[in-house]
Amino acid sequence: MRKAGRHFLQIPGPTNVPDRVLRAIDNPTMDHRSPEFGRLGRRVLEGMQRVFRCAGPVVIFPASGTGAWEAALVNTLSPGDQVLMYETGHFAQLWHKMALRLGVEPTFIEGDWRHGVDAARIEERLRADKSHAIKAVCVVHNETSTGVASRIDRVRQAIDAAGHPALLMVDTISSLASIDYRHDAWGVDVTVGGSQKGLMLPPGLSFNALSTKAIEASKSAKLTRSFWHWEEMIAANQTGYFPYTPATNLLYGLAEAIDMLENEGLDAVFDRHARHGAAARKAVEAWGLEVFCTNEEHYSGSLTAVLMPEGHSADGLRRTIHETFDMSLGNGLSKLADRVFRIGHLGDFNDLMLLGTLSGIEMGLQLRGVPHHKGGVQAALDHLAQTAAKQPEVRAA
Amino acid sequence: MRKAGRHFLQIPGPTNVPDRVLRAIDNPTMDHRSPEFGRLGRRVLEGMQRVFRCAGPVVIFPASGTGAWEAALVNTLSPGDQVLMYETGHFAQLWHKMALRLGVEPTFIEGDWRHGVDAARIEERLRADKSHAIKAVCVVHNETSTGVASRIDRVRQAIDAAGHPALLMVDTISSLASIDYRHDAWGVDVTVGGSQKGLMLPPGLSFNALSTKAIEASKSAKLTRSFWHWEEMIAANQTGYFPYTPATNLLYGLAEAIDMLENEGLDAVFDRHARHGAAARKAVEAWGLEVFCTNEEHYSGSLTAVLMPEGHSADGLRRTIHETFDMSLGNGLSKLADRVFRIGHLGDFNDLMLLGTLSGIEMGLQLRGVPHHKGGVQAALDHLAQTAAKQPEVRAA
Amino acid sequence: MRKAGRHFLQIPGPTNVPDRVLRAIDNPTMDHRSPEFGRLGRRVLEGMQRVFRCAGPVVIFPASGTGAWEAALVNTLSPGDQVLMYETGHFAQLWHKMALRLGVEPTFIEGDWRHGVDAARIEERLRADKSHAIKAVCVVHNETSTGVASRIDRVRQAIDAAGHPALLMVDTISSLASIDYRHDAWGVDVTVGGSQKGLMLPPGLSFNALSTKAIEASKSAKLTRSFWHWEEMIAANQTGYFPYTPATNLLYGLAEAIDMLENEGLDAVFDRHARHGAAARKAVEAWGLEVFCTNEEHYSGSLTAVLMPEGHSADGLRRTIHETFDMSLGNGLSKLADRVFRIGHLGDFNDLMLLGTLSGIEMGLQLRGVPHHKGGVQAALDHLAQTAAKQPEVRAA
Amino acid sequence: MRKAGRHFLQIPGPTNVPDRVLRAIDNPTMDHRSPEFGRLGRRVLEGMQRVFRCAGPVVIFPASGTGAWEAALVNTLSPGDQVLMYETGHFAQLWHKMALRLGVEPTFIEGDWRHGVDAARIEERLRADKSHAIKAVCVVHNETSTGVASRIDRVRQAIDAAGHPALLMVDTISSLASIDYRHDAWGVDVTVGGSQKGLMLPPGLSFNALSTKAIEASKSAKLTRSFWHWEEMIAANQTGYFPYTPATNLLYGLAEAIDMLENEGLDAVFDRHARHGAAARKAVEAWGLEVFCTNEEHYSGSLTAVLMPEGHSADGLRRTIHETFDMSLGNGLSKLADRVFRIGHLGDFNDLMLLGTLSGIEMGLQLRGVPHHKGGVQAALDHLAQTAAKQPEVRAA
Repeated sequence: MRKAGRHFLQIPGPTNVPDRVLRAIDNPTMDHRSPEFGRLGRRVLEGMQRVFRCAGPVVIFPASGTGAWEAALVNTLSPGDQVLMYETGHFAQLWHKMALRLGVEPTFIEGDWRHGVDAARIEERLRADKSHAIKAVCVVHNETSTGVASRIDRVRQAIDAAGHPALLMVDTISSLASIDYRHDAWGVDVTVGGSQKGLMLPPGLSFNALSTKAIEASKSAKLTRSFWHWEEMIAANQTGYFPYTPATNLLYGLAEAIDMLENEGLDAVFDRHARHGAAARKAVEAWGLEVFCTNEEHYSGSLTAVLMPEGHSADGLRRTIHETFDMSLGNGLSKLADRVFRIGHLGDFNDLMLLGTLSGIEMGLQLRGVPHHKGGVQAALDHLAQTAAKQPEVRAA
Repeated sequence: MRKAGRHFLQIPGPTNVPDRVLRAIDNPTMDHRSPEFGRLGRRVLEGMQRVFRCAGPVVIFPASGTGAWEAALVNTLSPGDQVLMYETGHFAQLWHKMALRLGVEPTFIEGDWRHGVDAARIEERLRADKSHAIKAVCVVHNETSTGVASRIDRVRQAIDAAGHPALLMVDTISSLASIDYRHDAWGVDVTVGGSQKGLMLPPGLSFNALSTKAIEASKSAKLTRSFWHWEEMIAANQTGYFPYTPATNLLYGLAEAIDMLENEGLDAVFDRHARHGAAARKAVEAWGLEVFCTNEEHYSGSLTAVLMPEGHSADGLRRTIHETFDMSLGNGLSKLADRVFRIGHLGDFNDLMLLGTLSGIEMGLQLRGVPHHKGGVQAALDHLAQTAAKQPEVRAA
Repeated sequence: MRKAGRHFLQIPGPTNVPDRVLRAIDNPTMDHRSPEFGRLGRRVLEGMQRVFRCAGPVVIFPASGTGAWEAALVNTLSPGDQVLMYETGHFAQLWHKMALRLGVEPTFIEGDWRHGVDAARIEERLRADKSHAIKAVCVVHNETSTGVASRIDRVRQAIDAAGHPALLMVDTISSLASIDYRHDAWGVDVTVGGSQKGLMLPPGLSFNALSTKAIEASKSAKLTRSFWHWEEMIAANQTGYFPYTPATNLLYGLAEAIDMLENEGLDAVFDRHARHGAAARKAVEAWGLEVFCTNEEHYSGSLTAVLMPEGHSADGLRRTIHETFDMSLGNGLSKLADRVFRIGHLGDFNDLMLLGTLSGIEMGLQLRGVPHHKGGVQAALDHLAQTAAKQPEVRAA
Repeated sequence: MRKAGRHFLQIPGPTNVPDRVLRAIDNPTMDHRSPEFGRLGRRVLEGMQRVFRCAGPVVIFPASGTGAWEAALVNTLSPGDQVLMYETGHFAQLWHKMALRLGVEPTFIEGDWRHGVDAARIEERLRADKSHAIKAVCVVHNETSTGVASRIDRVRQAIDAAGHPALLMVDTISSLASIDYRHDAWGVDVTVGGSQKGLMLPPGLSFNALSTKAIEASKSAKLTRSFWHWEEMIAANQTGYFPYTPATNLLYGLAEAIDMLENEGLDAVFDRHARHGAAARKAVEAWGLEVFCTNEEHYSGSLTAVLMPEGHSADGLRRTIHETFDMSLGNGLSKLADRVFRIGHLGDFNDLMLLGTLSGIEMGLQLRGVPHHKGGVQAALDHLAQTAAKQPEVRAA
């Protein structure tokens, strides 16, 4: 049976794609060798440099985000290379598993998933690596499985403090265009991004932003690669073209999304997400539930994972909410299965959508008989009202 | 500056048009003399009979709703004809003004706008009209300016009780496909409808549903008419065509909207609206504000008008909410200007959208310093949770 | 069974709506009382003044073209007024019939449908009307039923030469934005237009462009009117709003269409249509068939009506072409039924679409065994190649 | 400056995406872990089995076609494996180059690009490979660079005749859903496909159809792989899901495209393409130009490459046509640069679009002064008329 009204897609990505982007995507596909395409290509390539805040090349793959993880590794590393990775959650685990599959030798710094990266532990490992056998440090900026956002600037400081030449590679799939990120200022060598989160696009595009050092490393890297090879991409991109068929229609949407982000202002976008994260946590606190992330400094602006009370099923709650209120929430992944639910509050999102989202959760808690206090929505509402942009009392026509 | 997320269009129409309807509308225009068009024409004409719950013809004008008011009058009346109209609010006034312009002689039963039609007063007037000079009784089912829904069945009973032959003409512009309505069962002669409310379409189509008696009356009616003339419409509609160019692309959307309504079930649609109306009133009560409609039996399922406390500007509140939370609310019309605001909760709408809407109002009240109690959203939320469709505990895959 | 590829919609309107317009139309409906709407309203109202080439007001009705005919008459005339109309074809007949219905007294100058307006005959009638009983002269600029385009400048000269004060009202439904037209320069009082032809929109909007004299006349005109009343329209339009609900989504498309026309340049648009008309006639001549319009000066740039050889059914040809090649052509109307077919070559159209269109006709002639010479497409192709815009031999990258 | 009318995208892919597919693609992105998604996943996976005519699994990558080439190789081969490839043109060269990059050892059977695969030469090589060192035979079904379509059934027979166990891998990127292809009947082990040609989608999806033998081979293959790994794909696909984020919106379009193909009927689709190829060659012959493919049995139904007369630039012709008639044609690749142009006549295409396309070329030849005879369009038109589906003389209403 039809459900009335809009679905609330509140998983931490794919996010609610704005109409303007959808309508851009459904324009007729053009010849990717035409002059018009070259202009589009330059426009999105330059726009993505502003989004990553980098001056070097950004490579755009006609592939979803997992591909960009692979591209980061196969372009910079050789079989048997040591890599330092950090267990912040499920996605850090998956990247680690991929590294193993691709034939490098990752060391995985264990974590409890409830804190972000402890840069001191990275520094310690790098200082111990006198021979500089470690070729890269790989961290996830915002763990989509837990809502924990690590401090990348500190990771950079740790590497510098250790005087270690390892590359720094960062996954920003669920933070790009949602949480402050600075590829160049933070000395990142490869940043990995995807289209379907803060960029407000459907899945199908992914990104590598590159430093000079990363490009240099790629020249001697020995992992096999062809589709993911940066070299031909960078060469063809000079004039706005691609060495093989790009995902043209998604690029139409990307051009539109960049315009929208810049019209709002990237800093305003980050503030909006941070404010929504704070409001969501106010609700969780008022309900008497527990935010999964235990370190305030690592709270995420793009999603909030919530721990269920013992004996209550997070998936049951999600199912009730999906069926009764037509909202999708994120599930708990691997060891968190059925124990947490995740609220995506990123992308093309506003105060009323957030309060609708939190309302659906509060009603779901009631319907499922999950022990909680009322008033979560009220707490978030009060927070948003108090922090709303001030309006001028008197206005001209 | 761009505002993130979706605009909340919570005026009592035009309503939030669902994506499925928008995408239907943007299909290429077809030849309105082609065989394909004839099939589309029959499909929407028959579908609208089910929506109006009538067996007689429905006329579809390629024009917005005001046109269908005019069509109802010019097809059935002659210059100088007496008509009995009932002042339920601003739109009843406008229809009255139109009748005057068109050269008939309406009597306007005065009302205070806070109650619906008192059928006894109509009966009284008709009983007094021994000569049957009154040719038609015109009432508005759901006053869009006030959120007051009248009992059309009682108007029918009043006419019958008076033994009067007047035609019964009803405006359902903001009730059709939102509030229970039965053209045939209630003995209505002409029902007037529009596309942009419960039918979930953009404005640009309007409707007359006709009884045999209305068609009969049209044969001797003397008001001049051409565009609005039923006769050629009904003839051409037999095979699904129109005597002049129809609004083809809106008809695509209409076919889709009828499918959506019938997939949900018209009765389920009415229940959904009634439940949302009740939840909205819970919020208003909890805020300590006043619902403008003072007669419980006349509460509207499609919108709720709220009276502002003395000394506080409804338009100021609406402006703050529009600027701060990107939501449009309906304004107070004519004598209610700046004194009420109207919450549209009709069309393609669901629980989370309603709670987002009410949240925007509660935050607006805070920001404007309008005296109120907190907890309106909470009250609505509790009502919706308590009345949510029961979910089975155990489900099959 | 599905037909592959795009349908060729080559009736003389509705025309092939460009993707850009369709995508504009499917944007979410907005509040027509919002500040954003006011800006849109001004934009389209001012844009339409440039399209009509007039400085006075343009009224936009949320109704298809037939409504704008009615509006022209009911706003300017009183019951029993004499009007001079000219029989150029089926649509002139329909307008004449409408005038009768509305209670004015039209005189219909008879024509053979194969020539445009003979201005001398109008002058003669006006000179004879010493008492100035004739209140208006009504002519169709481009007869959609015949492909005959009259010289409006000459009609103006005729009225002036007769020293007659009658209003000049012109139907440009199938010429606006296709064939050169100048409301002010030609001293037209009311121009009638529609959305679904040269404006490249779906049907559902129609227009009246007004002179000061027409507005003056409307103040004393006595025909009843309400929906079509100019007065409230013009007042509300000052700030970009409408007195009743406008067809918002079609206005989105109108804004886009005006941009597209102005980007191409109105004069370039007229030249394009004229060139396509010439090419279509080359094809008809080469086939040995007869262009219905017999006066070269009155050839239409927007459509070409073709006379079938005796004993051959135009509708049969159209049906074969529709079924075999998925193209819609215009049929012969009233006395031309089954005797002519009409080729629409207006709107968003280019050389290759025209040659595809003519190819479909030439193949249809072959399949139906209609006597003709081969080479019509070739003749059109040669004409288009010879008149194609010159390309620079050497170009920079 | 705006160009009026529709662009003719007549490169051999991406092809003209039908409106129905574009509108499907622009639906809101859904949760790829939801029950609704599982149903979509099964629907497209099963549909693609019917398109490939295979009973085994089809793997769908959220990546453009080049990726599916890589997937075919890395899933089945080990470093240093010998592979037999066949030089049919530019794309066969690129696949060969990729194989080198990925660390296998391809033998490249040289060809002149104007003939398809000579199966006897493959048989000869395989017979000579007594040790069965060759692990795979890789051929391109339809060379997009030349319009030469090879006989895959003969390659299968050659392998069988040689009694050789090598895998057969076939690129059908520009033939799938355009030219008859049978994965199972022809004993293919891996078929490579892409979305942007006969499937009528934008680029961004690619496919591997697999035999049991291919899956078996993948278990011992040693080339590194992660993103392209079949194993997790096949496992997750059982229930309609994907191991990592799929290109959801393109899958909406794929479901629609499969429906459209099956509604027309795959065999009817192939016949349509073959008939259009024949008509295009009629035009080329009549112009006195040379079809690049010299072997009639290898003519392609999806594109036709045309050799330019000595001293005339194919790119100059293409540029003139693009600028003057807004049509994109395919360029000559690598050794054919500037010497051939390629006419794409595949995808969502019909007779009138083809004749518009050929008209643009004939006009371009005139404008550029390329020596040719007139009458190419006429020849194609006559062919299409003669081979058009017969229409019944008498039809019921």
